[in-house]
Parts: sequence; C-alpha cells; structure tokens
Amino acid sequence: MAKRLNTKPKHDGYRMPGEFEPHKQTWMVWPERTDNWRLGAKPAQKAFVEVAQAISHYEKVTVVVSAAQYENARHLLPDDVRVVEMSNDDAWMRDTGATFVVNDKGGVRGVDWEFNAWGGLVDGLYFPWDQDDKVAQKMCEIEEIDSYRTEGFVLEGGSIHTDGEGTLIVTEACLLSEGRNPHMSKEAIEEMLRDYLGVEKIIWLKNGIYLDETNEHVDNIVHYAAPGVVTLAWTDDENDPQYPLSKAAYEVLANTTDAKGRKLEIHKLHIPSTVEITEEESKGVDAVEGTLPREEGDRQAASYANYYICNDAVIYPTFGDETYDQKAKEVLQKVFPDRDVVGVYAREIILGGGNIHCITQQQPLGKK
Amino acid sequence: MAKRLNTKPKHDGYRMPGEFEPHKQTWMVWPERTDNWRLGAKPAQKAFVEVAQAISHYEKVTVVVSAAQYENARHLLPDDVRVVEMSNDDAWMRDTGATFVVNDKGGVRGVDWEFNAWGGLVDGLYFPWDQDDKVAQKMCEIEEIDSYRTEGFVLEGGSIHTDGEGTLIVTEACLLSEGRNPHMSKEAIEEMLRDYLGVEKIIWLKNGIYLDETNEHVDNIVHYAAPGVVTLAWTDDENDPQYPLSKAAYEVLANTTDAKGRKLEIHKLHIPSTVEITEEESKGVDAVEGTLPREEGDRQAASYANYYICNDAVIYPTFGDETYDQKAKEVLQKVFPDRDVVGVYAREIILGGGNIHCITQQQPLGKK
Repeated sequence: MAKRLNTKPKHDGYRMPGEFEPHKQTWMVWPERTDNWRLGAKPAQKAFVEVAQAISHYEKVTVVVSAAQYENARHLLPDDVRVVEMSNDDAWMRDTGATFVVNDKGGVRGVDWEFNAWGGLVDGLYFPWDQDDKVAQKMCEIEEIDSYRTEGFVLEGGSIHTDGEGTLIVTEACLLSEGRNPHMSKEAIEEMLRDYLGVEKIIWLKNGIYLDETNEHVDNIVHYAAPGVVTLAWTDDENDPQYPLSKAAYEVLANTTDAKGRKLEIHKLHIPSTVEITEEESKGVDAVEGTLPREEGDRQAASYANYYICNDAVIYPTFGDETYDQKAKEVLQKVFPDRDVVGVYAREIILGGGNIHCITQQQPLGKK
Repeated sequence: MAKRLNTKPKHDGYRMPGEFEPHKQTWMVWPERTDNWRLGAKPAQKAFVEVAQAISHYEKVTVVVSAAQYENARHLLPDDVRVVEMSNDDAWMRDTGATFVVNDKGGVRGVDWEFNAWGGLVDGLYFPWDQDDKVAQKMCEIEEIDSYRTEGFVLEGGSIHTDGEGTLIVTEACLLSEGRNPHMSKEAIEEMLRDYLGVEKIIWLKNGIYLDETNEHVDNIVHYAAPGVVTLAWTDDENDPQYPLSKAAYEVLANTTDAKGRKLEIHKLHIPSTVEITEEESKGVDAVEGTLPREEGDRQAASYANYYICNDAVIYPTFGDETYDQKAKEVLQKVFPDRDVVGVYAREIILGGGNIHCITQQQPLGKK
C-alpha cells in the first residue's frame, strides 16, 4: 500500500501545505535519552504529555515510542492519544518525521529526507542516528501513504517554512552548513526544495536564533502564520547577540515579496529573558561522548516563534517569564484571531535543544 | 482513541465472528529468532513472504516486525503489504495477537489475553515472552480499537475455534493444562470463554494433534469452515498415534449439537505422511537453554486443518506430499465451493512449530 516513489512531488502535482491548513493528525516522539533529557527524561516526558494533551483537544495525536518506554508512555499519555511503537534516537519529530505534501485531489504523500542528526560527523548532535532516519518511512507505512526518499540529500523539517502557496523561507546557516549537503551549490539545493516541496520562490535568511544547535533552523526564528503573514523572533535589546540576527532577518523579510508577489506582514515576537541551564539541571544529564553536553550556564535558544499551529489552535511555549510569555500570547492572538492560543510551560523542552514546533509534525487532512 | 475496557465483551453486545466472516485485514509477525528458525530464519522468512503474498491477493495484510529486521522485511515483502515495527518474541500472530470481537452495529474491539509462551515456567516454549504479551495491545492502538485485557487469564487464539453463532470448540489438553490457568476450574474457564467470546455452547475435545507443542491447540486438528460445518485432521492408519486422537475427536463432534441445536457436518482432512526434522535442518537452529530444541528425527505436528480462511480464499499448507497435498485441496474445495483454495509450501513453518493458521490473525471488517 505504501510505495517508495522515484519521481518528484512537484512533477506529480504535489506541494507542501501551510501548517495552518487542515490537519488529519499530529505526530510526536516520546523523549527518553538520558544524555539529553535530565533525570531520566521524566521532566521532559511530563512536558511532552502536556503538549500532546493540549493538541489532542483539537486534533488526533499519535506519539511514537521505543519498546522500552511503550508501557510508560501509554500510562502517562491521555487515552485519546494513539501510542505506537517505533525505534528512535531522540524525540524531534519535526526533523525526523515525514514532511507531508498534498495535491489538489486530496492525495497525501510523504517526503522522507535523509537525516544525519543535524550535521552528521561534522557537527551532528549525537551518534548514531540510524533509527531516527527510519522514522519517516515507518510513519508512511502505518498510514499507508506513498513516500519519496531523498537519498543523498540531507534536510530536517525544522529548517523549512512554507506558505503553501509557492513560498519557502530557510536560513543559509543551516541549509548551506558543512554537515549537510556540502557537495551541492546553493542553486542545486534550491532545485531540490522546489522539486520536493512544490515551491517557486525561496527566501533566504542568513541566520536563525543565537546558539541554536541545529545550525539555526528557520522554525525557531520565523513562523508562517498565513499566506503573506509571518511572525519573527525579536529583541529590543541592541546589546543582545540575537539583535543583529533578528534585525537582518527583518530586513530580508521586509524587502522581499512572496511567490504571489505579496509584501509580507511581519509580527514581532519578543524573545523571553535569557534562559540558561542551571547547575542542578546540568547535573541531571548523563555525560556521553559524542552527544552535545548540557552545561551549567549554557544559554538556550528560547523563542516563542517555535509554536505549533493545529486545527483551531496555536500551542506556544512559555518559560515562566512574567513579561514576555504574556506579550507573546497577545501577539499570537492578534495574528490568529480565529484560533485558541494555548501556552504550555516548555522549559524542559528547550533544555533538550528545541521547542514545541520541533517536537511536532502535522499530517495534512487530504481525503484519505 | 483506543481505550482499555474493564467490562466484558458479551455484556457489551460483542461476539467473536467466524473466521469465514468478512475481514478488514490479516495480521502476521515476521519470524527471526535463530533458536527456532533454521539458518538465521531466512527459509522461514521466505515461506512467510509467500503466505503474506497469497493472502494479499485477497485482502490487506499487515506484517509486524522488530526494529532489527524492519528493513529486511520491508525489502522482502510485496509493496502492497503494510510493514509496521513491533517488538516480539516470536512469530505466532494467532496466539499473541488480539482476538477481535464485533457487535451488530459494526463495532470492532480486541480481546488481549494474557500470553505466557504456551505454558509459562511450567512447559512454555521460550523465555521471556514479555514482548509477545504486548502485541495485542499494540495492534489495537494502531487500529484505534478499544480492547479488553484478561489479566490473570492465559489463552492463545489458536486454542479456540468458533462458528460466530454461539459455539466454541476447544481441547482439554490445552485449556486445562498446568501451565495456563491451573487455579481455575473447568467451569470458571468456560465462564471466561462465554464472557469474552460471546458464546453459549463449548464443545470440549480431549486432544489435538500428536506431539503438538502448544499442548494441542484446537486449530491444528479442527477448523470451523462455516456454521454447522467443521474440517477434522484425520488418519486412516490405525497404528499412527494420531489415530486414537482424531477418532476420539470425531466421536465428540459427531455426537453433539451446536448452540443452535444443529448436528455438525464433519469433513476429514487426512494428515500428510510423517514430517520429521532432518539432521541438516536441526543443525541450522541455534541451541539456547530455555527454548524448545529442534532435534533430528522429531516428528512435527503437520496437519492440513491448520489452514487460513481469508476473503474469497482458503490458504492451506502443503508439505511436498504427492498424495495428501492434493487430497486436502480436493476436500477444501468441496467444503469451500465459493473460495479459491491456494496451497503454500509450508515445511519451513511447521519446522518452527506451527502452520499457516498459527501465523495469521484476521481482523473483522466492522464499520471502522
């Protein structure tokens, strides 16, 4: 039922829809590796449960989990969340999961990018990553969805954002990094993105969020809220190292047009006060060679832009920041007047290196 | 979506349908343990592929497989078979999988019996069996089907056969064995069967097939072909140790009525000439303490009654037996005039201790 296709989505009439288009369901992975998540991943598991629970009020959620954690995940997750066994190397469904594409007849297919843990042996975050690289195919098999495999082309879902109408936003820091596709020119990479995502115009930002360990994924700094509308992680503090990065991104976004020739409406989401790993938090993480350590005082790439749009709602991360948690909610409610805006306390997720958008992947509705 | 229910199927209006009622799909497990399947399980895998392929001409097939064998199974199985990761201890989906029950509104639910590898620490066939015991729940989760767990009551799907109209056939050798539910009386066991399978009348045979290592599962000696119609493994050789067992079963079946008050129509399926493990076959199996050994000269419990009924077809085992393979086909074609009768060479399956019925599990159609 689920075939591996050797053609290309664009040629087959498929495009990646905007995250704001209707979903069939959301996919997540259960966190467990103790060299990334403190205290045996128990605090992170609690946070993931809260994210799954928040989304499940609005749409179906499937959480995949290793055999070892199956019973525990099933026990901790709400009844209405589907739990499916699946081996993995960590819990970043945005990056390891299939990127779904649709056609105008209700068809849904998966794009199964090669995955190398954000940089392989150059600057990847852990080793090995072989189980993560099989997640996309396994999702498609379960759903009986045909898929395209981009053997030899490395990409993660968090490094792309589309309006579903022909425009893609990416960062040079990530897509041109040495650890992904150094054998390819920028033009060749653009061609892959056009062919596999069905886009025409690609907007390149230089950078993402300061110290973002994914080589600055676009999904931590910018989010497409609707065609022609983006939210941008921002800071008013000119001394913050994030300032020049957000400023430069703003300049690019403000001075371009999308595939339809529209100017972009830009909404600023001020980042929270600096989030740093505490001594106690650092001590809860296993030290393992080959895995990025979590050290006391490390600044985390915390950003409200890393929210997730599900059917009828926006689930956004909060950090216990009295000022900016609330400001982010106000901006998001303005940008999404027809959706609920739901905050989930996400410190335990950002401690692992990402946020709500990074741990979720939407499967569009289609007709299946 | 998939709840664990604390009620009982019969009280909720559910019954186990006959295998001959319409299926949504067939489930199988990929064989791999090298202490049961010779030569790294490669010959068995080939036979399982042939069974899956035969069934997939008639209905959807899902094969579950460990992470270690995922890629190999996906490679060897036809494209139109769905492959899903699932940890397991061996490949007997009939016994580890959910027993599905239906109601008259199109509802489908699963019964998740406790599984202990055919006898636990008394006379079980391998240790441990913890992953096998989770298979039924995981199937139900994937399919979003609610399930009943019979904690403290051990049973395998191969030890029951129903007409879907209130009658169940079982063997005393299995259901009253010391390794399953020795704390329960025969009456208490009958009550469980009535409550969880929605049956009224239980027909008890004494035995199954000679040397059947499952404590003589009913599905190796008798098969319900339709309400009021059974097939029975038989031998005309009065000196064969199978003779008294089949004879006694015949006497019971010929002298009883079913839940609807019908006499049973009995069709004899003559067993093949004796199947014994060769020296070469025995040498291909890893010797592991705690797993039943496969020794040269061991007689296998080969029987044509271990066929599988799928939509529009019957898939039955052949043994390279010039006389009886063909005779079995003739009987089955007479019993199932409206179905294709398809033989699959099954020596590699019987060498592992079971046959086509043992490695399959039907999921009824329902309305879902």
